[in-house]
Amino acid sequence: MSPVFQSHNARTGETLPGEFPEATSEQIDAALRAAADAFRTYRNAPVETRALFLERIAAGTEAAAEDLIELADQETGLGRPRLPGELVRACNGARMFAAMLREGSWVDARIDTAIPDRKPAPKPDIRLMHHPVGPVVVFGASNFPFAISVIGTDTVSALAVGCPVVVKAHPAHPHTCDRLAAIVKSAALESGLPDGVFAMVHGRSNEVGTALVAHPLTEAVAFTGSLRGGRALFDVAAKRDRPVPVYAEMGSLNPVFLLPRALATRAEQIAEGFVASLTLGTGQFCTNPAMVLAQGGAELDLFLNEAGRRVAAVAPASMLHRGIHQAYEQGVNRIQILSEVLVTAKASGADLSKGQAAAVLFETASETYFKHREVLREEVFGPSSVVLRCPEPSEMVRFAESMDGSLSATVHGTPEDLEEYRELIDVLQTKTGRLVINGYPTGLEVCPSLHHGGPYPAATHSFFTSIGLNSYLRFVRPFCFQDVPEMLLPEELKNHNPRGIWRMVNNVRTQSPVG
Amino acid sequence: MSPVFQSHNARTGETLPGEFPEATSEQIDAALRAAADAFRTYRNAPVETRALFLERIAAGTEAAAEDLIELADQETGLGRPRLPGELVRACNGARMFAAMLREGSWVDARIDTAIPDRKPAPKPDIRLMHHPVGPVVVFGASNFPFAISVIGTDTVSALAVGCPVVVKAHPAHPHTCDRLAAIVKSAALESGLPDGVFAMVHGRSNEVGTALVAHPLTEAVAFTGSLRGGRALFDVAAKRDRPVPVYAEMGSLNPVFLLPRALATRAEQIAEGFVASLTLGTGQFCTNPAMVLAQGGAELDLFLNEAGRRVAAVAPASMLHRGIHQAYEQGVNRIQILSEVLVTAKASGADLSKGQAAAVLFETASETYFKHREVLREEVFGPSSVVLRCPEPSEMVRFAESMDGSLSATVHGTPEDLEEYRELIDVLQTKTGRLVINGYPTGLEVCPSLHHGGPYPAATHSFFTSIGLNSYLRFVRPFCFQDVPEMLLPEELKNHNPRGIWRMVNNVRTQSPVG
Repeated sequence: MSPVFQSHNARTGETLPGEFPEATSEQIDAALRAAADAFRTYRNAPVETRALFLERIAAGTEAAAEDLIELADQETGLGRPRLPGELVRACNGARMFAAMLREGSWVDARIDTAIPDRKPAPKPDIRLMHHPVGPVVVFGASNFPFAISVIGTDTVSALAVGCPVVVKAHPAHPHTCDRLAAIVKSAALESGLPDGVFAMVHGRSNEVGTALVAHPLTEAVAFTGSLRGGRALFDVAAKRDRPVPVYAEMGSLNPVFLLPRALATRAEQIAEGFVASLTLGTGQFCTNPAMVLAQGGAELDLFLNEAGRRVAAVAPASMLHRGIHQAYEQGVNRIQILSEVLVTAKASGADLSKGQAAAVLFETASETYFKHREVLREEVFGPSSVVLRCPEPSEMVRFAESMDGSLSATVHGTPEDLEEYRELIDVLQTKTGRLVINGYPTGLEVCPSLHHGGPYPAATHSFFTSIGLNSYLRFVRPFCFQDVPEMLLPEELKNHNPRGIWRMVNNVRTQSPVG
Repeated sequence: MSPVFQSHNARTGETLPGEFPEATSEQIDAALRAAADAFRTYRNAPVETRALFLERIAAGTEAAAEDLIELADQETGLGRPRLPGELVRACNGARMFAAMLREGSWVDARIDTAIPDRKPAPKPDIRLMHHPVGPVVVFGASNFPFAISVIGTDTVSALAVGCPVVVKAHPAHPHTCDRLAAIVKSAALESGLPDGVFAMVHGRSNEVGTALVAHPLTEAVAFTGSLRGGRALFDVAAKRDRPVPVYAEMGSLNPVFLLPRALATRAEQIAEGFVASLTLGTGQFCTNPAMVLAQGGAELDLFLNEAGRRVAAVAPASMLHRGIHQAYEQGVNRIQILSEVLVTAKASGADLSKGQAAAVLFETASETYFKHREVLREEVFGPSSVVLRCPEPSEMVRFAESMDGSLSATVHGTPEDLEEYRELIDVLQTKTGRLVINGYPTGLEVCPSLHHGGPYPAATHSFFTSIGLNSYLRFVRPFCFQDVPEMLLPEELKNHNPRGIWRMVNNVRTQSPVG
């Protein structure tokens, strides 16, 4: 008999009824074999079948919304309105990919027609489009039980392009995962798809994750979570006889830069927005602003006073699970014990027995960062942020040049500030995946222009995004047809362009037929 | 003093005058520091400056063509008309990327405009385009001293998008590399670019390659060569504190499938084309057809007779260097000693002291492949191919399902054949990067639709191509601007679209301005 684990109420810590078995290696093997079998037909399933499958996942989720929100609330403590909002976002995601499939241009079709009488050699007919890579293993995140879990972007983008998916259920919300998996399975059945197109396994041990990534039939892996967890899976995949990509999004510092004129004119307003961003969802976002840089002075004191006042007033809340809470406490302590660091403000009343996090704001001189870089470069997942007082503008550039890869950087500045700090803004673009001006890094806008990734350790591969329309690029590869007769070409590459998609034909973007 | 090595005449084995120093770790460090420094300005250099730089590389190469061809011929033995043709291809490549820069749409610009009054939350303005990744290390291939070496696709695609390049000169043609590097350096100077935008180091030892890939300032690596070499660099990069991608193209079997009706109607004609493809450039192509599959019978015998006759008549020629020749001899021997394998034909008269390869054609039953897979799956770089006699059509599918990733697969068939073998053609698409119908795998058509890559071990990452227009994708990453004011946006993302490029604006492809 394989070992089992249980789920817990995030707020009370109480054990919830029900047991979840650690997947055995036989179960993992069976899931991937079934996925590889399903790939034979699923990759060629009609566009409309795949689109309907995604829409049924969305509809099934919406139909079970109340139950799902109740389950997820027990297991994550994320509450309302967050969970209903996130459920809508996840369903919108599935529908976004259904729409992408029906529109069809996502395959990036390219056609270069033959020139049989070209000298010195004839030019062949060459055509290109995206093909799915094969079975994808998805590791969801604890902080997004809908949008980055069983039915999240990873799963629906992979299913959209024709890849079967094996999900590793998050052990912090296994009940929610089970319910969602049943919805996906039923949507697959209703769509007449092979059972292996979707599977889910449970596991709290590293062994389950390792076995999924190491399995010879796994073609790609998506992961959202900690640097340690993501890197461990990356290392497993890199050591395979046949390495496969692990697309891990592992969070970052998301520094916020407060430029002088902006600080002088709206320190309190920025403090309000900043604290809201820092403490949203108990600070449990990959894009949480964990570091602030500004030149010292009266304006910065005003910001610190106001931000401190607001941080102190944040009601403590239970974190997603006890492991995350413990890591938060340890992370905060690592900073707190540095003699150069001052605690500007800390929320009071946190009940540690309930896994509650106290929001905290630190301040220190920017030189502390360079002195204790090994401590301060590390993301503390939760509502904690460190303000670095910079002696002069060049110190911000120095920080930017030395910082690790980050999902985002935020700059608050007046037009004059931004003009004056062009070098900073330029350097930040080499270190991050997204630049936010006069806003806040949390709250991703899911759209074709979004990029959620960045240089390592924000992500393991900076070309790819884990959120937004382009997230499907992780699960496709270009495939090239040379002199392939019309009868064997996919619809997307046939001369008459039956799907009416945008294509690049002989170097011209067009929706017209060839010839 | 650092150790030195010398170059050799590929045909005679004679040592050529001149010595090349193994790069020291200090020299490697200096090259990458200079590249990182140059990146600060080069990434923002005007499009026209970068385009002119590429065109000057092409013009400089053409001006020195006779010398370069003479040098390369001595060092590689590839001769005429191959080398002049390859030089033209390399210069066309540089100009293709200059044209891509001027046209401008390669940045994949996407714009989603703000909706300030959207409920429940305002929609921010989000814009996306490609940014260069930073310093790129390029390892050229011995078999393409122009098109996959110092001025090859890797280098010019990286330079095009704004990445400085450090080339590791190929130790089998260091004189040619030196001459080409001088041309690139002079083009950089003439273009007013910082010196660090391009550097080249020599090295025959693994240490030089390892140090280049392990260097903390290296952001991406391009490699074309053997599986062993590519995998070693991939492993070095994966173990870094901050892993970086190694885009290695490592060759493959490129199987050719002869379907019954095609074989019945034109066995001799196919044999002619096949042997020409097999022995072109002494078989020294990544796309060399190293395996043939067909159902046994009189038609296959006719193919074998004709192909054998032609292989036996191939004039022996010196391979690129003695190491490759030795590996070829060993590879051929590994196959030859299998008792189930018959030597159909072998060219005679090869002078081993001159590193000459004898073309060879083997034949065996397809079951031999499954029995001796560890031997027969391995690419033998050179003019050697194995014909597998298949007892029935399903055996070809079985082979396709079990084969390793390959750059290409080729199928010869009449329309009826192709209809009947749809399953084979479908499975081949999951294992390769390119499908060729009624043609031959060698001779790449460089165009927007080309993909030269495929599932491992054809390439380390199947999304990317090492040849063709899309090769630049290896050296960019999407960067996202959120609520960034017009004044700070790159030209490509400004509302009025000053460059007139194709963009995706609010989900519509257009060249029009925003708003």
